[in-house]
Amino acid sequence: MSTCTICGKSNAVYMRRYSGERLCKKCFNNSIEGKVRTTISKYKMLQPDDKVAVAVSGGKDSLSLLHILADIEKKFPQTSIYAITVDEGIKGYRDEALKFAAKNCQELGIRHKIVSFEKMYKISLDKLADILKGKEKNELSPCSYCGVLRRRALNTAARLIGANKLATAHNLDDETQTILLNIIHGDAIRIARVKPVLDKGHTKLIQRVKPFCEIPEKEIALYAYFKRIEFQNIPCPYAQTALRNDIRRMLNTLEEKHSGTKFAIFRSIERIRPALETTAKKEKLKDCKLCGEPTAGEVCKPCQMLQELHIL
Amino acid sequence: MSTCTICGKSNAVYMRRYSGERLCKKCFNNSIEGKVRTTISKYKMLQPDDKVAVAVSGGKDSLSLLHILADIEKKFPQTSIYAITVDEGIKGYRDEALKFAAKNCQELGIRHKIVSFEKMYKISLDKLADILKGKEKNELSPCSYCGVLRRRALNTAARLIGANKLATAHNLDDETQTILLNIIHGDAIRIARVKPVLDKGHTKLIQRVKPFCEIPEKEIALYAYFKRIEFQNIPCPYAQTALRNDIRRMLNTLEEKHSGTKFAIFRSIERIRPALETTAKKEKLKDCKLCGEPTAGEVCKPCQMLQELHIL
Repeated sequence: MSTCTICGKSNAVYMRRYSGERLCKKCFNNSIEGKVRTTISKYKMLQPDDKVAVAVSGGKDSLSLLHILADIEKKFPQTSIYAITVDEGIKGYRDEALKFAAKNCQELGIRHKIVSFEKMYKISLDKLADILKGKEKNELSPCSYCGVLRRRALNTAARLIGANKLATAHNLDDETQTILLNIIHGDAIRIARVKPVLDKGHTKLIQRVKPFCEIPEKEIALYAYFKRIEFQNIPCPYAQTALRNDIRRMLNTLEEKHSGTKFAIFRSIERIRPALETTAKKEKLKDCKLCGEPTAGEVCKPCQMLQELHIL
Repeated sequence: MSTCTICGKSNAVYMRRYSGERLCKKCFNNSIEGKVRTTISKYKMLQPDDKVAVAVSGGKDSLSLLHILADIEKKFPQTSIYAITVDEGIKGYRDEALKFAAKNCQELGIRHKIVSFEKMYKISLDKLADILKGKEKNELSPCSYCGVLRRRALNTAARLIGANKLATAHNLDDETQTILLNIIHGDAIRIARVKPVLDKGHTKLIQRVKPFCEIPEKEIALYAYFKRIEFQNIPCPYAQTALRNDIRRMLNTLEEKHSGTKFAIFRSIERIRPALETTAKKEKLKDCKLCGEPTAGEVCKPCQMLQELHIL
């Protein structure tokens, strides 16, 4: 593929079509790490004295993020990093991923906190999925429950650890898929909430940051592979919703034919977000009547879900 | 396919997946005509004393619109309708379409005005495309020139006729494609301008209305076929941009698997438009220094294009 366009010496192993660069392994890795640093400073994601909780599932994205943040941490002695893994209770899947998460944390010397649905909500996702299967009207998929409960678990765990930031490994593909999903679902106002740094809105909410938001999924996979990071590579048995998968496929096809499409969508939304945020109602969050966690209504979404399932 | 869900008598010939209706030919045609009337009144598109110019290309969409508006006109004696066809000068294509346009106007007893690029701009699109082919750097496609010049031609012709409304046959597919194109192109602010009724913004601009904006393309094709409207059915030799075609295919695939997707996108944008419009700069339109037509800058886009091509 000829020589690297950055160092001009080594053989290029990756063609970055949206920029026209051909990169060798070393320059590619450097570019990813540099991009993360740029994203962090551009969106003011982290401060030198932050206590950062990293959401680590055990997959390529979150483990790559953990490695990069651990490396950045070395230059900031006042910063501390923790890894949090949510164990939803998915046999043959999360139990395997947990091992990868733990092994990487050990290698990097990072404290690892595991929070389980079983302990927190008194039910595993496997059992929850069983209950849903038995219901006649299956309104929501296991993924809908899992998303809400996992987000809550991460926030609570991060807060208990004493973290003031929660870093997740959402990448450019995740973000553009969510943008299109929201447009298609008619939740256009929710587009405003797909962003690199999420507002706190309540003292009990830990600020969420997404240092990978401008990196394509493909490049993170390549980074993990080049860095020989050991990660779990099997998909969740409860799969993604059909629509998100269709949108993923569609976006990849478009990107293949018109490189830069994903970035263009991301930038587009950046430009209209201020307008959307100005007019979108800013809900004042309250404490949930049942659990005391932040909520827009009287009872928070996780408690509502658990009530519906007769667990609470 | 069993009986029609509306009349309960005739055999259904069309399954409207997004609504679950099965319709016979007559009830289907009625539903399209009813939908157009609803759209017109919902968006306050037309008033009883309007002089309406209909942009008629000679294809299925514009001729269906002409037939439906001509029928509506009968109930409003103060309304008058004119058809305008822009002859861009595309041999083997527009000359054929013109015959269909003229024939339908004659049948319906509607006055038909033809404006040609040749007369208005002193150049046909065929010649313009030849000039572009000869250029080393081919920045814009013939379609980009055609779009700008055709829009101007329609507006000028409508104004000279004395019309106060200009109806175009943009359908739900056109609108959602344009929305996604704008998002992908990073022109998110332009999304606000994709709407059923376009503001005037200048005394010389005729208000544009889109009575088909909530009707899927497929249903208009079916309507034209059921009503035995004779129309031109070959695509323009200068084709669409590759990206719009990819988006069309994508949206059709999504709609096939998740019916209602196009409506959802349309509704989504309706909801965020007010926010976008509030913050989008409202440009005050001036008179073009060269031709006197409305423009945001000093020289209007059509004049700029003609200057670049050394025609002006």
